[in-house]
Amino acid sequence: MEGLTAEAASLAGHLRLGRLIVMYDDNEISIEGSTDLSFTEDVNARFEAYGWHVQDISGHDHDAIAAAIENAKSETGKPSIIVCHTQIGKGSPNKEGSASAHGEPLGTDEVLETKKALGWPEDQTFVVPNAVREYWESVQKKWADEKASWNELMEEYRKKNSRKAKELDRILAGDLPKSFRKAVAEFETGKSVASRSSGGEVLNMLNEVLPELIGGSADLAPSTKTVIRNEDFIGPGHFEGKNIHFGVREHAMGGVANGLALHGGFLPFCATFMVFADYMRPTMRLAAIMKQRVIFYFTHDSIFVGEDGPTHQPVEHLASMRIIPNLRVMRPCDANEVAEALCLAAERKEGPTVLALTRQNLPTLDRSTGEIAEIKNARKGAYILKEAPAGKPDMILVASGSEVHTALEAYDKLVAMGKQPRVVSMLCMKLFEEQSDGYKRKVFPKRVKKRVAVEASLDPHWQKYVGDKGLVIGMDDFGISAPKEKLAEEFGFTSDGVIAKIKEAGMLD
Amino acid sequence: MEGLTAEAASLAGHLRLGRLIVMYDDNEISIEGSTDLSFTEDVNARFEAYGWHVQDISGHDHDAIAAAIENAKSETGKPSIIVCHTQIGKGSPNKEGSASAHGEPLGTDEVLETKKALGWPEDQTFVVPNAVREYWESVQKKWADEKASWNELMEEYRKKNSRKAKELDRILAGDLPKSFRKAVAEFETGKSVASRSSGGEVLNMLNEVLPELIGGSADLAPSTKTVIRNEDFIGPGHFEGKNIHFGVREHAMGGVANGLALHGGFLPFCATFMVFADYMRPTMRLAAIMKQRVIFYFTHDSIFVGEDGPTHQPVEHLASMRIIPNLRVMRPCDANEVAEALCLAAERKEGPTVLALTRQNLPTLDRSTGEIAEIKNARKGAYILKEAPAGKPDMILVASGSEVHTALEAYDKLVAMGKQPRVVSMLCMKLFEEQSDGYKRKVFPKRVKKRVAVEASLDPHWQKYVGDKGLVIGMDDFGISAPKEKLAEEFGFTSDGVIAKIKEAGMLD
Repeated sequence: MEGLTAEAASLAGHLRLGRLIVMYDDNEISIEGSTDLSFTEDVNARFEAYGWHVQDISGHDHDAIAAAIENAKSETGKPSIIVCHTQIGKGSPNKEGSASAHGEPLGTDEVLETKKALGWPEDQTFVVPNAVREYWESVQKKWADEKASWNELMEEYRKKNSRKAKELDRILAGDLPKSFRKAVAEFETGKSVASRSSGGEVLNMLNEVLPELIGGSADLAPSTKTVIRNEDFIGPGHFEGKNIHFGVREHAMGGVANGLALHGGFLPFCATFMVFADYMRPTMRLAAIMKQRVIFYFTHDSIFVGEDGPTHQPVEHLASMRIIPNLRVMRPCDANEVAEALCLAAERKEGPTVLALTRQNLPTLDRSTGEIAEIKNARKGAYILKEAPAGKPDMILVASGSEVHTALEAYDKLVAMGKQPRVVSMLCMKLFEEQSDGYKRKVFPKRVKKRVAVEASLDPHWQKYVGDKGLVIGMDDFGISAPKEKLAEEFGFTSDGVIAKIKEAGMLD
Repeated sequence: MEGLTAEAASLAGHLRLGRLIVMYDDNEISIEGSTDLSFTEDVNARFEAYGWHVQDISGHDHDAIAAAIENAKSETGKPSIIVCHTQIGKGSPNKEGSASAHGEPLGTDEVLETKKALGWPEDQTFVVPNAVREYWESVQKKWADEKASWNELMEEYRKKNSRKAKELDRILAGDLPKSFRKAVAEFETGKSVASRSSGGEVLNMLNEVLPELIGGSADLAPSTKTVIRNEDFIGPGHFEGKNIHFGVREHAMGGVANGLALHGGFLPFCATFMVFADYMRPTMRLAAIMKQRVIFYFTHDSIFVGEDGPTHQPVEHLASMRIIPNLRVMRPCDANEVAEALCLAAERKEGPTVLALTRQNLPTLDRSTGEIAEIKNARKGAYILKEAPAGKPDMILVASGSEVHTALEAYDKLVAMGKQPRVVSMLCMKLFEEQSDGYKRKVFPKRVKKRVAVEASLDPHWQKYVGDKGLVIGMDDFGISAPKEKLAEEFGFTSDGVIAKIKEAGMLD
């Protein structure tokens, strides 16, 4: 019934995933009662419409199950579904076929009655009949033999192709080539480039050294800029590409990316507009729980999407993703932070990473003069991007992504007013929280109480960084449809707007 | 392609919504190119499998469209889909049938070329041909006549049934009967009842005076306790009930509830476990943007769900919903707060409300002795539930829902230690924020710096209420599977655990 299943089944049918076999336990019972209460569609016809191989059997007929699995295996051009008609709680004299057999344990008495009805030993628990035990022992033997001969084959391959074999081991272990960062060229300063575009460039650079990279977009690739050039697209019956057309199926896209990560041997990414992250939220949560390396790649990361208006303008999304445990959210401020963020995401074995990238252009900061911090500092999540002129700040401006540039402009104006501001770039709150207390205090010294956060979003996380005497310049409602320059003015995300709010808060006194 | 559509279409087919006509513009183009890149299923067969009436026509054949709509109207036992095969950008010599006709404007030159190709006046914009104008004028006349005679009928009805007519006006205006709160009986103290259960009771009480109440659960009604007793269930071709079996379709459930609210004349609620709120998040966001009165009713609202473990234990969900603008999240601490929360949700015309309710039992507080605040105070979102014994607090414990009782227990222990704590119940942060500065300062006086928030969730919103010197006792990771008593101990949500953390924070010195 879940829409996620519909998306995944449609995609599997399209791609002709001949190796996929789904056993559908059609027991006609849901928690509220008979599935007829809410679900009377023709499931078999629906899966045929998706292009699946459909079989319909009794799920209590063991020979029929075995035969159906063999049929499904021999159908290699389509995914297979085996619709198994069953009675839930089969054998239970009082609960068979009822909703209570789904939601509740049978209970001691009914378990006894069921054993009696099934002719099962009544006085034993965890019984494994001898026939089953013998069958599994024979299977173990067979598979041990198969494994041994496969290992032999692999050893031979290893001898003849040691470089490739090592690469395979590396990929399956989820490790990266030691010098993989060298593949990522530094971006030239003086140019203005949207972080969605620099992100696409970095994906392509990483692809040169990471054969495990694979991914795609939910029908937005021309906008998310995530196509890996010179690589094929995976298509129906054709699986040798590195790009995937997911279709307008965000939820299934997240599920597929999780599946690729769980399988091992892949570094999957999946892309859409940030506002649509809501459609795939359960998959981000699961990736975080399962500690899987998945890159959730979201462009159009703020109200500065512009004319599309509130339905397409993320406002609460940064906060709602930052709040998921073990999910790192990275919002880079320029092309070189984008590169760093993607490298960190690739290096991270313990969980998923969100990239938050802009639609609009951002200047690439000149980090060569010493005024702006070197990019390696970004690896600590947050860092002093630009120190107060005299080295001892009396105010901290902390920002992320596109608003870092607003903060830098405000910095200049504050300096002209005789102030000593510091600009901190907050690439990733969770990564920053992992740093030593000493480092955290260095970035946010206790004595500096005048702290201002600037981010075109609605996020209570900032409160902690600015403190009771600080100021958060963010959103407090949905966006509106307008060109991005007008929005910046309207919502105060210009350097003049920032200065005005700082003044209003009494921080210039 | 979206799973949401699949859920909704399956439900519409099941319910035999004979008045629903969907025009499907099948132009075979998506943003990444031909729909064939990711979508090759047999859509017509799929909708037939859902039980729909399917027609397949050229979407450029006006007579065929008109005939298909008439056919669809006369098919009253099934919803209808009219699959309209079209060329996107029809008539544009260079863009017809291409993806760029979807994602980009045609441009001035191509618009001119298109007009030429279509034989359309080239020098005019916003042309309405005379035939169209005349047709619409005749339609306006016809509909004005129909409206006038309907109004006459309604006036007659009004005279004969003034009470019913007033009730209809009230319902369509989204107003409530003036004394509707009288239908909600006060809950007896001394009893322990899960807030999901008291919530169910309140829904049933409200139903006595609110014929507009309608709703259901995504196949969890026995657990969410949301069945309205003595009222029918809506079923295939049978629409006179007030209960809906939504099936395991959370996303469509949210969409249906929004649709009912937009239609007018309904007070819709939709229920599931809180962890599944993620599946329907886009619909909550839209209800908030559209300012619709919808009750999103979530039970099993914390780790205290217990043995089902992290996949079923909401941790970040309260925060992720509180962050959505214009969405009120209410987490009541006892049966009488549940009643108040549901009344507030029903009264609220400007937007949706989330109810966060427990699986586990909660004591119903005795509000008769003066020690615990009267329930009407809850209408301010947060209120002083129990004042310090001497009337002047030196510490504030603020909590929501089930953790209010933990805070009250900790209160007793702190008092025994000679402290002067105050307990604040935070029913709804957004509602509290709407109060006057004076009231807010009264609840959280500036001079009291020792502030402790207790909530079995991960929510940065608390930081603002406890301040720099405060303490948040919450979650910082996913939950684990265990009985609820063990979880309370493990994560420190017992009064002893709370006291220990307060001590550790140096607040007892």
